Amino acid sequence: MNIQQIIKQHHLELLFQQGTFGIEKESQRVHSDGSIVTSSHPKAFGNRRFHPYIQTDFAESQLELVTPPMKKLEDTLRWLSAIHEVTLRTLPENEFIFPFSMPAGLPPEEHIKVAQLDNHEDVAYREHLVQSYGKYKQMVSGIHYNFQIDPKFIEALFHAQNETQSAVDFQNDFYLKIAKNFLRYQWILLYLFSATPTVEEKYFRGNSPLKPHQYVRSLRSGKYGYVNDPKIHVSYDSLQEYVETLEHWVKSGDLIAEKEFYSSVRLRGAKKARDLLEKGIQYLEFRLFDLNPFAPYGIELDDAKFIHYFILLMAWLEDTADQEGVELGKARLAEVAWEDPRQQSVYAVEGELVLLEMLKMLEQLNVSDEIKTIVKDKLGQFANPSQTLCAKVVAAIEQVGSYQQLGADIAQSNKAKAFERFYALSAFDNMELSTQALLFDAIQKGLNIEILDERDQFISLQFGEHLEYVKNGNMTSHDSYISPLIMENKVVTKKVLAKAGFNVPQSIEFTDVKSAVENFPLFENRAIVIKPKSTNFGLGISIFQQGVTDRDDFAKAVEIAFREDKEIMVEDYLLGTEYRFFVLGDQTLAVLLRVPANVIGDGVHTVAELVAVKNDHPLRGDGSRTPLKKIALGDIEQLQLKEQGLTVDSIPAKDQLVQLRANSNISTGGDSIDMTDEMHASYKEIAVGISKAMGAAVCGVDLIIPDLKQPAEPSLRSWGVIEANFNPMMMMHIFPFSGQSRRLTMNVIKMLFPELP
Amino acid sequence: MNIQQIIKQHHLELLFQQGTFGIEKESQRVHSDGSIVTSSHPKAFGNRRFHPYIQTDFAESQLELVTPPMKKLEDTLRWLSAIHEVTLRTLPENEFIFPFSMPAGLPPEEHIKVAQLDNHEDVAYREHLVQSYGKYKQMVSGIHYNFQIDPKFIEALFHAQNETQSAVDFQNDFYLKIAKNFLRYQWILLYLFSATPTVEEKYFRGNSPLKPHQYVRSLRSGKYGYVNDPKIHVSYDSLQEYVETLEHWVKSGDLIAEKEFYSSVRLRGAKKARDLLEKGIQYLEFRLFDLNPFAPYGIELDDAKFIHYFILLMAWLEDTADQEGVELGKARLAEVAWEDPRQQSVYAVEGELVLLEMLKMLEQLNVSDEIKTIVKDKLGQFANPSQTLCAKVVAAIEQVGSYQQLGADIAQSNKAKAFERFYALSAFDNMELSTQALLFDAIQKGLNIEILDERDQFISLQFGEHLEYVKNGNMTSHDSYISPLIMENKVVTKKVLAKAGFNVPQSIEFTDVKSAVENFPLFENRAIVIKPKSTNFGLGISIFQQGVTDRDDFAKAVEIAFREDKEIMVEDYLLGTEYRFFVLGDQTLAVLLRVPANVIGDGVHTVAELVAVKNDHPLRGDGSRTPLKKIALGDIEQLQLKEQGLTVDSIPAKDQLVQLRANSNISTGGDSIDMTDEMHASYKEIAVGISKAMGAAVCGVDLIIPDLKQPAEPSLRSWGVIEANFNPMMMMHIFPFSGQSRRLTMNVIKMLFPELP
Repeated sequence: MNIQQIIKQHHLELLFQQGTFGIEKESQRVHSDGSIVTSSHPKAFGNRRFHPYIQTDFAESQLELVTPPMKKLEDTLRWLSAIHEVTLRTLPENEFIFPFSMPAGLPPEEHIKVAQLDNHEDVAYREHLVQSYGKYKQMVSGIHYNFQIDPKFIEALFHAQNETQSAVDFQNDFYLKIAKNFLRYQWILLYLFSATPTVEEKYFRGNSPLKPHQYVRSLRSGKYGYVNDPKIHVSYDSLQEYVETLEHWVKSGDLIAEKEFYSSVRLRGAKKARDLLEKGIQYLEFRLFDLNPFAPYGIELDDAKFIHYFILLMAWLEDTADQEGVELGKARLAEVAWEDPRQQSVYAVEGELVLLEMLKMLEQLNVSDEIKTIVKDKLGQFANPSQTLCAKVVAAIEQVGSYQQLGADIAQSNKAKAFERFYALSAFDNMELSTQALLFDAIQKGLNIEILDERDQFISLQFGEHLEYVKNGNMTSHDSYISPLIMENKVVTKKVLAKAGFNVPQSIEFTDVKSAVENFPLFENRAIVIKPKSTNFGLGISIFQQGVTDRDDFAKAVEIAFREDKEIMVEDYLLGTEYRFFVLGDQTLAVLLRVPANVIGDGVHTVAELVAVKNDHPLRGDGSRTPLKKIALGDIEQLQLKEQGLTVDSIPAKDQLVQLRANSNISTGGDSIDMTDEMHASYKEIAVGISKAMGAAVCGVDLIIPDLKQPAEPSLRSWGVIEANFNPMMMMHIFPFSGQSRRLTMNVIKMLFPELP
Repeated sequence: MNIQQIIKQHHLELLFQQGTFGIEKESQRVHSDGSIVTSSHPKAFGNRRFHPYIQTDFAESQLELVTPPMKKLEDTLRWLSAIHEVTLRTLPENEFIFPFSMPAGLPPEEHIKVAQLDNHEDVAYREHLVQSYGKYKQMVSGIHYNFQIDPKFIEALFHAQNETQSAVDFQNDFYLKIAKNFLRYQWILLYLFSATPTVEEKYFRGNSPLKPHQYVRSLRSGKYGYVNDPKIHVSYDSLQEYVETLEHWVKSGDLIAEKEFYSSVRLRGAKKARDLLEKGIQYLEFRLFDLNPFAPYGIELDDAKFIHYFILLMAWLEDTADQEGVELGKARLAEVAWEDPRQQSVYAVEGELVLLEMLKMLEQLNVSDEIKTIVKDKLGQFANPSQTLCAKVVAAIEQVGSYQQLGADIAQSNKAKAFERFYALSAFDNMELSTQALLFDAIQKGLNIEILDERDQFISLQFGEHLEYVKNGNMTSHDSYISPLIMENKVVTKKVLAKAGFNVPQSIEFTDVKSAVENFPLFENRAIVIKPKSTNFGLGISIFQQGVTDRDDFAKAVEIAFREDKEIMVEDYLLGTEYRFFVLGDQTLAVLLRVPANVIGDGVHTVAELVAVKNDHPLRGDGSRTPLKKIALGDIEQLQLKEQGLTVDSIPAKDQLVQLRANSNISTGGDSIDMTDEMHASYKEIAVGISKAMGAAVCGVDLIIPDLKQPAEPSLRSWGVIEANFNPMMMMHIFPFSGQSRRLTMNVIKMLFPELP
């Protein structure tokens, strides 16, 4: 079978490049000095029995971060970034993630706890490893790169050939070819991506094979790394022989289980190797990769892409390495691992030839220039070893003085970066902040997440068999369809709330200017609001707080409202302060006061300066990427200043409140002030009742309250409902300008998954 | 207290005219000849124990139709019309509603069954009436007009005076004044609105007081009508005296219960008169009115408005009639009732004076000209008795030959009219047809309905304490909020359905033209559909049924799709016929085939003629007022004809199918064909499964099926899901072009109210 020809003839170029990618990344939790912690895996990460993203590997201190399989490497790395951000922000204040594969500051062996998993077999397996390899070797970390080619590609390839009759055999042969060629040429990836040039002496139990100032390319992949006894030989001649030799070593007791076979490539798709014969190999796991300490989460996207095409090249090559070739490749790997990273490799020429072959493949596949540039850059590194990752690591170690110190510096810097925009989840920054907050919590607690539609803020969350959909942060199956329809319609809302016995400002609707104005006598001398029936953005609203006395004023306000809608309402105006109640189920979880954009004078600075200082707050920004918004100094604000006899250059007196807006919206620079603990319980109960009358699971209730410390008196008209909002905003409660943060997204998760431990 | 002055000073003119209006209308079920039926109250009207709209009065044959109280008379009469339409369409084919108050074709007394109500007391009361009055008198029908003035008006009036200290006493005095003045001047309304000039001899048990060809104004309100023994005098001097005298007659046994006191005006608001002393009179019931046989439902809107202002006049007048005045009024009523309707009344001058007073009031209240015109017209009738309703009735009787025949003619014509647009509920014709159908069913079965927002198709239905909201016919609390969001988004829908194991055509999404076109090789030679991601109106869709072979064709289709959305899908095209499954809960209730607009040749008529004949079908119309649409003969249809080598003037051969559209939408003249019974059960189960995967309570599932008689084979790709639709259309199933009607709105009601008997 000539794969290159078939791809060309059958236009399979694109299909060949499609696949699924998953990354597992181990790393140690460390103190600020880079030394490994002996604390337990943090409870905040939920339960390791099911956590899909945040696990532990060998030791309790050894995090294993796992991405879901994704169709695009970009997405895989986004997930890796997101899981990192969640992990870093959840770790105790004095803990960090070490960026190197080789451990540093190793505690005495007896202080290292193997991972305390629920499953006894898992713990027993780890205890066995301790016996075979000692604890220190098990503390080595790395990246595992999982790759499945698009099954449609294998299918198309199978149908285009006639050498093999069985589809499963064909699939197994295809993946075996990649595995064998990979083992043959793996040293090339090691040369390019290794990053473990040294380790502390303690690792060798005081018996370091490294001379002073000696650096190697990869301690991890050499004989002092995490490798099997050299006598363990497993055949790749055929899947049958692979299964039989592997089973032999387990039977003989040299391996406690098949998974103790540490090959740079693992055949995946079944728990037992033997099952692969029937099921077929589903994907390959490449375990060769050291952590890249310069990449914030251990691997760069460009390198991940290079690896993808390198794997494809292993399939593309005309030849398939035989067992002899595999052993040759393993030997070269060991040799190159022990080379000085600042020197050329002895096999540089082979490396260059393989990468030239890769460039030819890219040409045939009509791949974008971006990939070609990456490959050309790597090709150049054979002539310039100083450009390899490992040489750069060595240079950095030399500069800082020790690899532990370098690791500690990077670990601290990475953690600080994870907190820069602490209210966001950077990887999903094109989604709304509330969905980012929800994703953060779901990742932390270990729900299976699927982003169904990013633009649409549509995700699914799953725990076991229990599947839930969420849109816009808190739209869920718990809301009945009709509730938001009621809330959208102010007239219907009022009818429903009044019927349920809540204080609703009385109102009358009109569908034309004439009949509204004719009814002026009904409103004369009453405090009223005139507003369009269905718009929600404060447009077209006029308030007569002191009572409307003039028919012409009334008529003008009616006309303004009609500009926004075909139907308007004239409503009683309630005196008091408006508070937003966030209700979920039977509880008011948060109460917020929204204050119009303002600054407070200090007798020294101008309004403009005070605004600039206030705008410097980390929660404030422009657009939708921050929970609070910067105060503008546009026409509306200047008009507001003018009404107070001020300009932007005025210097307000000390403690003088300068109002820059009449409306209290957060979106125009308003302050959000948490009042949950201050609010009288009776109002919180009223808000819950209103939400229930709306049939809502999650509801934002706006109440006008004369005094938040005094109990509500339902019989007196001393308070009133302004609005009930579906899909209420959460960020202003989670990250208020002042007062306590209320982590509402976690409440949404608990509502959806009460069974979550 | 000078009410006129207070209204003026306090600008209460509008408030004075506001009120609540409810109408009860009795009438007999009759055969086509106008004779009273002896059949039971139809079971289709649900249960009289709770039915708010369709009840029986004295006899099993005597319907009592009751409107809900409404703020506008227009709405009250709309409800009366709606209840009538439902009643007429529900009656057995050979039953009608008699339009006269006086019965005709009376059966032997022993054949008349009193209403078979669940409550024994109610039946016992009726048996008592039989003893006191005989059955025939009880068969007389009429209209009761209930009126409550806006409570805010009474409140305002109360605060503006200082004669009465108690608000309840003030309210009672206010309503008593109306009642007394009404009793004083009620003869005027009788003169204008009476319509019972004669009755068959049998009614008098063979002893008619009427001479041959003698007509009177109102048999019903005279001594041969439905009146108490003349000795029963009840005092209206004060509410206290009213209560005491009424209780006296019950105590003495002359009345079996307070409700046996048949006054033209009843004080309402409590079960027992004595309770009114504390609770206050809430509204008045005016019982004077004969059925207007010329009004389709017994009363004209203009007359109802006249009565409203007449009642207001009773409050407006400076004087309040004393007991003497009340007795005088009752005497005049009896006199006028016995006058010849074709002659002037002896009290015409008083009538004219009162109506002139009324016109003055209208002037003061600044009432619209429409009302003034109505009053002026009535005023003229004192000089022209031939213009009174009763004189017109007499003329019609003389022309037809007998009042029974006239009644039978009108009854038949009314019933025929109620069937003219049998798919609509005329009173609510500005709502969608599906909501009209739902309202029809809810009225028939006796749910309490509130129209919350007419433009928004938003209603509530209530049974006992159980309240449900419905929007657009089938959006209810049974749907979770997230389901329609899933269904709205085609990408999410497919992910969810594929995950649940349903056959979904595979697809790939693109966000720019370039990358879509680059991926052409993935689709080459495959049957595909290219479509925008989120539009729903068939715009921008291209189908390559035979497989796409040309890259340029593909690119063009991609561009067309991108004109409609920022994201497009390229999807496998399934071969087969598309059917719409209407799923509710666990059941597929209806399956529909939609056929593109077409005609079938007869070898004689042209295409244009055939279209004209087809368009004449009663279900076809323009706009949204009919279940099916007329076939247009515009550019698109002519192009379609051209592709078949035809023009509008061609004469297609006998049985030749001429297609006028490529798309099968009902909105462009397509035919809807019910296939529920033909469809293989396996597909109905699949549709239910799909609806469940969407989390939907009501769902329209579009399946492509190669052969509806063969069972679905889920393992083979022999069928597929095209779309799942929230809030699916119902009218095309309820009123299909051919095949059986499926009354889906009743299923919606049963879903919401499983407890409904």
